[in-house]
Amino acid sequence: MRATVIHGPGDIRSESVPDPQIIKPTDAIISVAATCVCGSDLWSYRRVNPVKEPTPIGHEYVGVVTDIGSEVGSIEPGHFVIGSFYASDNSCPHCRHGYQSACVHREFVGGCQAEMVRVPLADGTLVPTPGQPGPDLLPSLLTLSDVMGTGWYAAVAAGVRPGCTVAVVGDGAVGLCGIIAARELGADRIIAMSRHEPRQRLAREYGATDVIIERGDDGVDRVMDLTGGVGADSVLECVGTAEAMSQALGSARPGGTVGFVGVPHEVEISGEALFRSQVGLRGGPAPVRRFLPDLIDRVWDGRIDPGGVFDLTLPLDQAAEAYRAMDERRAVKVLLRP
Amino acid sequence: MRATVIHGPGDIRSESVPDPQIIKPTDAIISVAATCVCGSDLWSYRRVNPVKEPTPIGHEYVGVVTDIGSEVGSIEPGHFVIGSFYASDNSCPHCRHGYQSACVHREFVGGCQAEMVRVPLADGTLVPTPGQPGPDLLPSLLTLSDVMGTGWYAAVAAGVRPGCTVAVVGDGAVGLCGIIAARELGADRIIAMSRHEPRQRLAREYGATDVIIERGDDGVDRVMDLTGGVGADSVLECVGTAEAMSQALGSARPGGTVGFVGVPHEVEISGEALFRSQVGLRGGPAPVRRFLPDLIDRVWDGRIDPGGVFDLTLPLDQAAEAYRAMDERRAVKVLLRP
Repeated sequence: MRATVIHGPGDIRSESVPDPQIIKPTDAIISVAATCVCGSDLWSYRRVNPVKEPTPIGHEYVGVVTDIGSEVGSIEPGHFVIGSFYASDNSCPHCRHGYQSACVHREFVGGCQAEMVRVPLADGTLVPTPGQPGPDLLPSLLTLSDVMGTGWYAAVAAGVRPGCTVAVVGDGAVGLCGIIAARELGADRIIAMSRHEPRQRLAREYGATDVIIERGDDGVDRVMDLTGGVGADSVLECVGTAEAMSQALGSARPGGTVGFVGVPHEVEISGEALFRSQVGLRGGPAPVRRFLPDLIDRVWDGRIDPGGVFDLTLPLDQAAEAYRAMDERRAVKVLLRP
Repeated sequence: MRATVIHGPGDIRSESVPDPQIIKPTDAIISVAATCVCGSDLWSYRRVNPVKEPTPIGHEYVGVVTDIGSEVGSIEPGHFVIGSFYASDNSCPHCRHGYQSACVHREFVGGCQAEMVRVPLADGTLVPTPGQPGPDLLPSLLTLSDVMGTGWYAAVAAGVRPGCTVAVVGDGAVGLCGIIAARELGADRIIAMSRHEPRQRLAREYGATDVIIERGDDGVDRVMDLTGGVGADSVLECVGTAEAMSQALGSARPGGTVGFVGVPHEVEISGEALFRSQVGLRGGPAPVRRFLPDLIDRVWDGRIDPGGVFDLTLPLDQAAEAYRAMDERRAVKVLLRP
């Protein structure tokens, strides 16, 4: 089959590799209907994360089950399914607590920018859609595999409630999905931080009531201006840099909460500053599995349309161009069609 | 009047100073019935916090109102009152949100180890008891001014709920009050971390179901042993050191929460480690005022008895000995009687 392999920083290749096989009796094989490039894939592409050897890349997928292991019970060949980038048994204490991203049997589902993918712990990981989706639903369903689930978690972790004021740091796909989540969870006011016109437009379409272009301390000042000096109840940190975290913490009111889902890179938080700010903090890799059934319903019923984050679609074998487009910020997020 | 003044590290003196006067029309003057030494007072005593000039010390107080400013409406001379170490107007947006410790008019109430104290923003700050308390209630009422309110906040910030498992880092007065709070909020299991026999006994009396003596990584391992490898739902960090924070974060389950109320000293939190742990974090100076009415009721009705944290009572003019006793860990907390 065809798969995308990263050989080093800036070196993405579409290669022919062996088809994945059932290895464990709890595995399933999926024929990928759509996959995409994640902001976190760019960490390797940009040399922030090391690439030690050629590695199949991608962790977002939707598709049709083609084969299952002997112990798989609830998933069947022919099912159209979505799963998280973390496979989970959905039955351990952490899973039952809603933190499937900390499953004791957790496995990263890698190499998904490919025609087929092996998903471990299929029963726990995969959620079938109510039927075979039409092509128009594919993009939105694909976002549930990561960015929409992650944006949703950012909003949940930040304690978004009906009537509250939310600020969203980061105008990438996760931040944009976070805006959808904040709206769905009933936020009254959603302040998006974005200086890119097409992203600003999408942010407003998704529910942002205010868009500010300032960053850093100026960004914090603007949020304070907009909230009468109080600060936001909930802040979604969807970037992962020290500047973004500082901006997020500074934008929250005392007693407010920052939900952070951008994988932190060299982010140090001063305990004393956090203490003084009285801001709560919760983050981590999103337990996407927790939200999948609900989010599938919302997409299926047309209540949310997160697929709009894809502003470029390419054939799978043009993955290298997909990475370039995202790296150069010519695209928010690129969908790849096998 | 007589007041306690810190002149430098280890140098506590009982001195004669002018009586406090009404300065602003929102002030009240209180004749102090009882005051005490806080673990945080020891930061100055131990040279961790600088002492630039002789400074009246102490921030915990209960007593009878003797004078009020012209704009004070709800507090009257003769009322027996309790207030937080932070004066607050109880009406600004932060106060109304329950974060009186972030009041926009916040003032620290200092110099309370004295016969009299001036309390700013009396209407917002002071809460009268249902009547004049007998001497047996004084110690417990005094704890509400800080340590019991702070322990309560630690439990609230850590999300303690009925049926949950709690770990408490720190066996000082705040940690012990945190155990009371965890019990009152319905925790099933309360793991106290203490290696001092008298504090262990008090911890059990207050509701600890398990006491562990290990610290650091060994302490984390013991919590994991006791919770079947899962970790605690809620962890109360009542110390403020890097070791205590690390132990607290390590003891919480993914999705669990650390409430931290020990004033952090040189505590740096790695954003990446916090992300990986999936543990939430909320702390700060406790909004004691939020909890005062409820906690006064609990003490008045005999449901809680936090006054047990005082294991030494001295006359006010022996404040120097009170500090020595706490510094040398001969006493958990010393009550001073003017």
